Amino acid sequence: MAGFFITFEGVECSGKSLQSLKLVEYCKTHNIPAFLVREPGGTEIGEQLRSILLNQYCTPLAEFFILSASRTQLTETIIKPKLEENYIVISDRYFHSSLAYQGYARGLDIKVLQDISKTVTLGLEPEITFLLKPSYEVARARLIDKKKIGLDRIEQEEEHFHKKIYDAYISIAKDYNYFQIIEGDPDPETIHQEILLSLKKLDSRF
Amino acid sequence: MAGFFITFEGVECSGKSLQSLKLVEYCKTHNIPAFLVREPGGTEIGEQLRSILLNQYCTPLAEFFILSASRTQLTETIIKPKLEENYIVISDRYFHSSLAYQGYARGLDIKVLQDISKTVTLGLEPEITFLLKPSYEVARARLIDKKKIGLDRIEQEEEHFHKKIYDAYISIAKDYNYFQIIEGDPDPETIHQEILLSLKKLDSRF
Repeated sequence: MAGFFITFEGVECSGKSLQSLKLVEYCKTHNIPAFLVREPGGTEIGEQLRSILLNQYCTPLAEFFILSASRTQLTETIIKPKLEENYIVISDRYFHSSLAYQGYARGLDIKVLQDISKTVTLGLEPEITFLLKPSYEVARARLIDKKKIGLDRIEQEEEHFHKKIYDAYISIAKDYNYFQIIEGDPDPETIHQEILLSLKKLDSRF
Repeated sequence: MAGFFITFEGVECSGKSLQSLKLVEYCKTHNIPAFLVREPGGTEIGEQLRSILLNQYCTPLAEFFILSASRTQLTETIIKPKLEENYIVISDRYFHSSLAYQGYARGLDIKVLQDISKTVTLGLEPEITFLLKPSYEVARARLIDKKKIGLDRIEQEEEHFHKKIYDAYISIAKDYNYFQIIEGDPDPETIHQEILLSLKKLDSRF
């Protein structure tokens, strides 16, 4: 038995947070030791960085390095130790988010971000990444709906920014053989079952 | 006429802040457009990052990336534009501080930090760096004296940490031909005159 590292990626309102919660709940119900983290954040210093990032303007590079600071703190002090204790670690976003947001959408060099991310993550990559990919119209409609309760700085970006992220993930998925795309708009329980089916093939604990 | 970029480096209590202040005052008195910044900080987001960094524990890599975020924001939004407006820009610390503190003292790979710093600084290096190098005993005595009014997280490090930084700067100086070492313990005005003498050789405005 060993640790197992799962990440979720996708545009705003793609259902990542819901699916990572459903997965950790499933683990708890089945007595599988699991630990859920989110990015940016997940550590004391990471949550402070998250708050700076979501509320204040900075350059794309500064944005990338703030995220990298939060990410490396999370990886070194939480994710790696939990994996060593044989936990299933589930992360709502990881370095692929930076490739999509600061790379493809804000125009920073993808290769440079990939290289620096190897240092940031201490070389740790997930065993599987679920890319949640609802139809663009559905993700858009959910974001517009969320506007009523208030959006953070990233969520407030213009539509063409969100469209870039949506397309970016399709390119990123091609670069990493551990990406699995969950496509379309079935209900959350159907998506959850699809995720479980994939995990059962990879680890006998599921 | 063009911008001119000067940085100050050295251990805690080496006199960097005092000398950078004296230099900017000299520029003002002589109607030379000059702008003083400090690291970490110097921008709104940088000051928030500085406060996180000086008060809270994080891993050496997280420390490096928080500093890098502050540094890239400062370089892109303040230092570069001011240089383009032909200002003398004086910075109290720059990326060489990370080589000393996070590299030599905290054990991160120097080559990796140098590589990433090229991205952080958008390739901008100073025309001259003054490394203030009082005798170790004098710097140490000043730091102990400062303890009475309170030290931040970095200043509170043990003596062997400060000794590592002291030695690190001697190695770093060898790697950059724009480093000029100001050695020994003359009074601040004598050091200021030595700095001016060097600058007069490089730029006719001084």
